[in-house]
Amino acid sequence: MPVYTAPVRDTLFVLNDVLHLDRYANLPGFTEATPDMVGAILEQGGAFVQEVLHPLNQVGDEHGCKRADDGSVTTPPGFRDAYAQFVEGGWGTLSAPTEYGGQGMPHVIATAFEEYMISANMAFAMYPGLTHGAIAAIQVVGSDAQKRKYLPNMIAGTWTGTMNLTEPHCGTDLGLLRTKAEEQPDGSYRITGTKIFISAGEHDLAENIIHLVLAKRTGAPDNVKGISLFIVPKFLVNDDGTLGARNGVTCGAIEKKMGIHGNATCVLNYDGATGYLIGEAEKGLAAMFIMMNAARLGVGLQGLSQGEIAYQNAVKYARERLQGRALTGPADPSAKADPIIVHPDVRRMLMDMRAWNEGGRALILWGALMVDLTHKAASEEERERANDLVSLLTPVIKGVLTDKGYEGATLAQQCFGGHGYIREHGMDQFVRDARIAMIYEGTNGVQAMDLVGRKLAQNGGRALRTFLEIVSAYCAEQKTDEKMAPIVEPLEKAVGQLQAATMWLMQNGLANPNNAGAAAYPYMHLLGLVAVGHMWAQMARASLDALAAGASDVGFHEAKLITARHFAARHLPETASLRRKIEAGAETIMALAADVF
Amino acid sequence: MPVYTAPVRDTLFVLNDVLHLDRYANLPGFTEATPDMVGAILEQGGAFVQEVLHPLNQVGDEHGCKRADDGSVTTPPGFRDAYAQFVEGGWGTLSAPTEYGGQGMPHVIATAFEEYMISANMAFAMYPGLTHGAIAAIQVVGSDAQKRKYLPNMIAGTWTGTMNLTEPHCGTDLGLLRTKAEEQPDGSYRITGTKIFISAGEHDLAENIIHLVLAKRTGAPDNVKGISLFIVPKFLVNDDGTLGARNGVTCGAIEKKMGIHGNATCVLNYDGATGYLIGEAEKGLAAMFIMMNAARLGVGLQGLSQGEIAYQNAVKYARERLQGRALTGPADPSAKADPIIVHPDVRRMLMDMRAWNEGGRALILWGALMVDLTHKAASEEERERANDLVSLLTPVIKGVLTDKGYEGATLAQQCFGGHGYIREHGMDQFVRDARIAMIYEGTNGVQAMDLVGRKLAQNGGRALRTFLEIVSAYCAEQKTDEKMAPIVEPLEKAVGQLQAATMWLMQNGLANPNNAGAAAYPYMHLLGLVAVGHMWAQMARASLDALAAGASDVGFHEAKLITARHFAARHLPETASLRRKIEAGAETIMALAADVF
Repeated sequence: MPVYTAPVRDTLFVLNDVLHLDRYANLPGFTEATPDMVGAILEQGGAFVQEVLHPLNQVGDEHGCKRADDGSVTTPPGFRDAYAQFVEGGWGTLSAPTEYGGQGMPHVIATAFEEYMISANMAFAMYPGLTHGAIAAIQVVGSDAQKRKYLPNMIAGTWTGTMNLTEPHCGTDLGLLRTKAEEQPDGSYRITGTKIFISAGEHDLAENIIHLVLAKRTGAPDNVKGISLFIVPKFLVNDDGTLGARNGVTCGAIEKKMGIHGNATCVLNYDGATGYLIGEAEKGLAAMFIMMNAARLGVGLQGLSQGEIAYQNAVKYARERLQGRALTGPADPSAKADPIIVHPDVRRMLMDMRAWNEGGRALILWGALMVDLTHKAASEEERERANDLVSLLTPVIKGVLTDKGYEGATLAQQCFGGHGYIREHGMDQFVRDARIAMIYEGTNGVQAMDLVGRKLAQNGGRALRTFLEIVSAYCAEQKTDEKMAPIVEPLEKAVGQLQAATMWLMQNGLANPNNAGAAAYPYMHLLGLVAVGHMWAQMARASLDALAAGASDVGFHEAKLITARHFAARHLPETASLRRKIEAGAETIMALAADVF
Repeated sequence: MPVYTAPVRDTLFVLNDVLHLDRYANLPGFTEATPDMVGAILEQGGAFVQEVLHPLNQVGDEHGCKRADDGSVTTPPGFRDAYAQFVEGGWGTLSAPTEYGGQGMPHVIATAFEEYMISANMAFAMYPGLTHGAIAAIQVVGSDAQKRKYLPNMIAGTWTGTMNLTEPHCGTDLGLLRTKAEEQPDGSYRITGTKIFISAGEHDLAENIIHLVLAKRTGAPDNVKGISLFIVPKFLVNDDGTLGARNGVTCGAIEKKMGIHGNATCVLNYDGATGYLIGEAEKGLAAMFIMMNAARLGVGLQGLSQGEIAYQNAVKYARERLQGRALTGPADPSAKADPIIVHPDVRRMLMDMRAWNEGGRALILWGALMVDLTHKAASEEERERANDLVSLLTPVIKGVLTDKGYEGATLAQQCFGGHGYIREHGMDQFVRDARIAMIYEGTNGVQAMDLVGRKLAQNGGRALRTFLEIVSAYCAEQKTDEKMAPIVEPLEKAVGQLQAATMWLMQNGLANPNNAGAAAYPYMHLLGLVAVGHMWAQMARASLDALAAGASDVGFHEAKLITARHFAARHLPETASLRRKIEAGAETIMALAADVF
């Protein structure tokens, strides 16, 4: 069975030494988040996921979810019990607002814990994960009455939530959706239509499920401007908070998928179900994007999480499996063979995974901190700056880190040789589970278009300018330290590639939007390399400072410095060929007639 | 259900216009392989795999193989019937020697057909695929009596073959193997041990299975120099060719795998089974490498094949799925949305797949032709040259084209969005099936080490020198044609990167073998880009010539030219960052102590 240990030491390094959470101690929620408190939460959270969720990961994959003829759904053995413990421990309440029963901690702390939960059991973690998205939408666009009615139970976890966008003929292009909402005399709506790919759509974990559903009101424009958002509870909720009648929404089928078998991905049939408009009519898309943006960071986290657990298992196998001899002579002459971790090509895979996992963790936690600052920073200027940065980098965190999570899981499987392809070792599950993260909440291609077509241009390019200023200033400041040179010099070159590519895009993307479309994917990865490179520079700085201050865990910090140099030497140079791809333009991509392919 | 059409037009273009098979018409076997004959074979072969094998591909994935308590194995529904048709049609005999019942056609023609068979049903194709490897070994090292006894039935397909190398504790490092062979008074051996991961190890398709088994004779050195190869038939074969007693080899279990469910991957228990030494005692490894080299080209073909069928399905979906609008304005204003093939990012994925599939096909068929010339070319010099080239490029064909096959299958799945993750569309099967090709017959990391540690150095580097001379001369010859410039100029630069990387490797790999180990993987991909780029240049030349000569299928040739430019503009520049990775050396890769990971 695969192993997993929550990387608490590494998380604390990012939170304390790189992001310096103590600098925000004056902000709401951060005051209580002292290093000791955060350390205790993460240790306990790590122990919980290791002991309770991780042992169910392969079980969930093997058993999957079962739908009975009446449309009820049973989750895999052990999931109900584990979910009860999750609720009991209050693990879903960490960063929820105190007025609805949450603990009011910073989002960045909850994110750190969620990484562990997803590593331990991604399919399980999706049940509370989707709930968080629904909570976010209700918090922002719901009426006070709606908040009081739904949030306390959703935050506690006794109810879960879902997001209902996709229909059989309509995924990315939501303007095409057909689900109808007919207004009733009492102000509620009758919702009718079919939604597909609804994660956690039906299950036996919670008393109630609060579906957030996109639909078109009668007479609304038949395009994206006609979409409204509705709350459709599985069980209607009485005014006193007790559960009422079963609503007209049923699970028509569970999809058979490549992975995440432990999560019930449902076809949901709405058959005149009672729904309640949430937020303004015909503004449903904007409301849905609140959920989507939170969800996209969560999906980026899934990439990291699968990369991390896959890496841990590859390391263990590489230390134990005896096969061949070190190229420089036997490492252990007393044995018949050396452990495969002596082989440079095995180490290449391990170091590549490690560099992306640790760098990705830093980037995601930084992004989560920006989400906190968007709401909580003291000045309007700081809030705007944080919002600019996280908006810009959300598609990068989602798109790049899920690509790298899949790549990492594939590399980890590769370290196992033939044993990685055999299901009992569990390595193929990480690959199959990681695969979905590149697809849902907007495919990675859609993320790239969001970045290039929307985020770059917003406010006259302010966000990218801010980002480039931060990274350039950091390089200028650090490059005088010769110990930082092996990281900062490649980073500066990478920034140069990013600037040149951006210039090309401005000059050629407006003239021909297909140039922007053709450049989007490599541009997203180029920005991702710079963003993660910037995190690696900061981690290297933090480790140099710690060593200079006489830190006791010398090995930890030396490993950071080596891994930082590895990222700089072997990954940042990819920015050059990404720029070449961007500058190649759309010509060969658009030239073939559709029927010639 | 997925679609598949054998790309006969494209194969014939490579065979006739690029490789110019007619130039070899004086060689044995090639005389009969006229363009008309080859076209007819491929058309019929394509029809056979489309109609008989392809409909069973998903069936095989869903049902898998079943082992009964007595150790017998049942293949998925329909496989027996299909295999009978395969034998009946003589599809396994194409390039087998006529003296044992084969058709004596060139290997390159059989390879072209095998691509179709693997695309249509990879798990099925492995049954005859493994047989071919076993045939190759018996042909080269078997005695005349052994050839007469086993080859006719194996070539006909009434018997199949296997390769038995791996044991639970021993994969790449065959010196560790424990299977024992005790000589008997009659000169036969008693074979005892456990082999794992044996593809097609037990099944119900054929009357008999001829296992080729690596084992150590009593008293032989307990390392790679003590390994011998044995023939161990499932049913002993009487001198009159009839089947005798059931031998002591049984299937102990079928592995549960990520993919290729239709193939029975067995644990085989040898319990004093009767075996016959084949080839010289203690020279088993050399004999096994004959099988391995043939098998490695076959595995490269699996990468291409899965990439090709995945691509075909992505194209179909991209033409049919309506979602969003072209960036330059509605392509079909009468519909509510455009087909997603209008989107540059979807086309990016399709063009990348296409460029690697068509380029990979050309490289593999060229490699197969080199195998033919190794045996059949008129002069010793030509035979040696062909052998040098195919030896050098076998690890590249295996390692690079299987990486690209997996990448292509993943991209094709991505084109489907969420629908790609749902099993009914079959896109995830291509990914799961393609995954094994990066692992077996030597992981791709092992291929890279074979290339850098062995093939580059052989005969003082003669093979690489020959290859570089060919490519450089071609560039020099073609670059005067301005229509070739968009392909040849990037190719020349890529050759420059390869030369520089090779120089670095010579200077730094000998001084520290870990530098060679750390460089091996990017070097393999660098050589692969140049090799495929060279094929693209030749295809572009062939299409320009065809257009100049007034070819009727203008669209076909124009698409070739566009795709060639696409490969040159968007893939060849990756050689620069691969060189940077190589030149980064082993330092950061080897620096961490094993217990710090």
